[in-house]
Amino acid sequence: MPPVILVTGGARSGKSSHAEARTRALPGAPVYIATARPSDDEMRARIARHIADRGAGWDTVEEPFDLVGALDRTDGRGPRLVDCLTLWLSNLMFDGRDWEPQAAALTGALARQASPVVLVSNEVGMGIVPDNALARDFRDAQGWLNQRVAQVADEVEFVVSGLPLRVK
Amino acid sequence: MPPVILVTGGARSGKSSHAEARTRALPGAPVYIATARPSDDEMRARIARHIADRGAGWDTVEEPFDLVGALDRTDGRGPRLVDCLTLWLSNLMFDGRDWEPQAAALTGALARQASPVVLVSNEVGMGIVPDNALARDFRDAQGWLNQRVAQVADEVEFVVSGLPLRVK
Amino acid sequence: MPPVILVTGGARSGKSSHAEARTRALPGAPVYIATARPSDDEMRARIARHIADRGAGWDTVEEPFDLVGALDRTDGRGPRLVDCLTLWLSNLMFDGRDWEPQAAALTGALARQASPVVLVSNEVGMGIVPDNALARDFRDAQGWLNQRVAQVADEVEFVVSGLPLRVK
Repeated sequence: MPPVILVTGGARSGKSSHAEARTRALPGAPVYIATARPSDDEMRARIARHIADRGAGWDTVEEPFDLVGALDRTDGRGPRLVDCLTLWLSNLMFDGRDWEPQAAALTGALARQASPVVLVSNEVGMGIVPDNALARDFRDAQGWLNQRVAQVADEVEFVVSGLPLRVK
Repeated sequence: MPPVILVTGGARSGKSSHAEARTRALPGAPVYIATARPSDDEMRARIARHIADRGAGWDTVEEPFDLVGALDRTDGRGPRLVDCLTLWLSNLMFDGRDWEPQAAALTGALARQASPVVLVSNEVGMGIVPDNALARDFRDAQGWLNQRVAQVADEVEFVVSGLPLRVK
Repeated sequence: MPPVILVTGGARSGKSSHAEARTRALPGAPVYIATARPSDDEMRARIARHIADRGAGWDTVEEPFDLVGALDRTDGRGPRLVDCLTLWLSNLMFDGRDWEPQAAALTGALARQASPVVLVSNEVGMGIVPDNALARDFRDAQGWLNQRVAQVADEVEFVVSGLPLRVK
């Protein structure tokens, strides 16, 4: 089975750069599956910075919602980097879609991939309880999703200050 | 001496499930010491989900304030799971009680238990400084409490995405 | 080369105490480089508590902005403890200064020190995305700074509940 690798960490912890390095080290031409929606200037600036950091040699697929479809369509082409699960989950939740069946479908899809998958996700549950009910729901959903993906992953790394701690 | 085990992590990191597995693996009939107060619908839903996740075979003791008493009363019955220190501390602080002597009494009580104790706590200090002074006080108190309990614990585990990292 | 050690962790995680112990264990009379500005009562109380925790035997240098100058001026006197990068960054940002060249100058200065340096920093990116744009900017800058300092450091430790996890 090709590896499924989950790279998690805080905002600006260096998790994307680390996940890119892990993906490049796998055989084949890497595919970048971007879940971001360039919906505002701040997000557009963040996406532009990520593209610049990533450099040449990547095929890019933009897919804010149908991540399972994007994985199945790109399977066999090379290692895929999914950046990131947090934006994907946030797109689903804030678009009012039912994210739980999609999360279940994702773990199923990860188990059947023929090419490797590296997934980036965020740790969002180590601050004070948010005042806002929607933020609490998001925090719970993100924690639950990270657990489920970690269960099916072959490796899980937690990135602190740009450095990976192996947790699985 | 029976082990005292601290399991810490973010919200929905899988720390309760992991702590339950650790408690079940210890000899004797497990006792669940619940510190939650079912004060609102969201908390009631959270408690119901935890009970369902936990399954059968647990004795349950509900004690939002007198945790030392609950530990002393249940000592000798089997391994105790305290879930969680964060709700206990929050009950004390938001009820206007003096939590520091209670925290000192807790570390004293942990040192004299004849049966094992597994304690769940939250990491709440890895976000942006909260705007709210009460939230900052809570964050400081929780950090301080985790350090004190970790000092007397035989084992400390930090759970990320459902997976434990051993820190002591 | 003398060691450069980065100690990171959440608020009240015990990172300052741990960093103080690391500094004291190095040869020479320790120098405390305080970046805090006693601008309000809460900060004054926090500083007083840190001084009391630290005990006697430290030379103290207060420098909220020119950290590179403080390192260069104290080089050769003994191991330096910088507590902390988060307050330094926050002083620069909220005073409207250009922090990026200063961060670059800091990593350069760390590479040329003849005496050891232990630096304390905070993890601030593991909560929910802040509502406030300034807080998001700070969070990004802090994450970026931690990565850059970690790159030039010989050792990086992540402190959880008062206990260090070695990440480099």
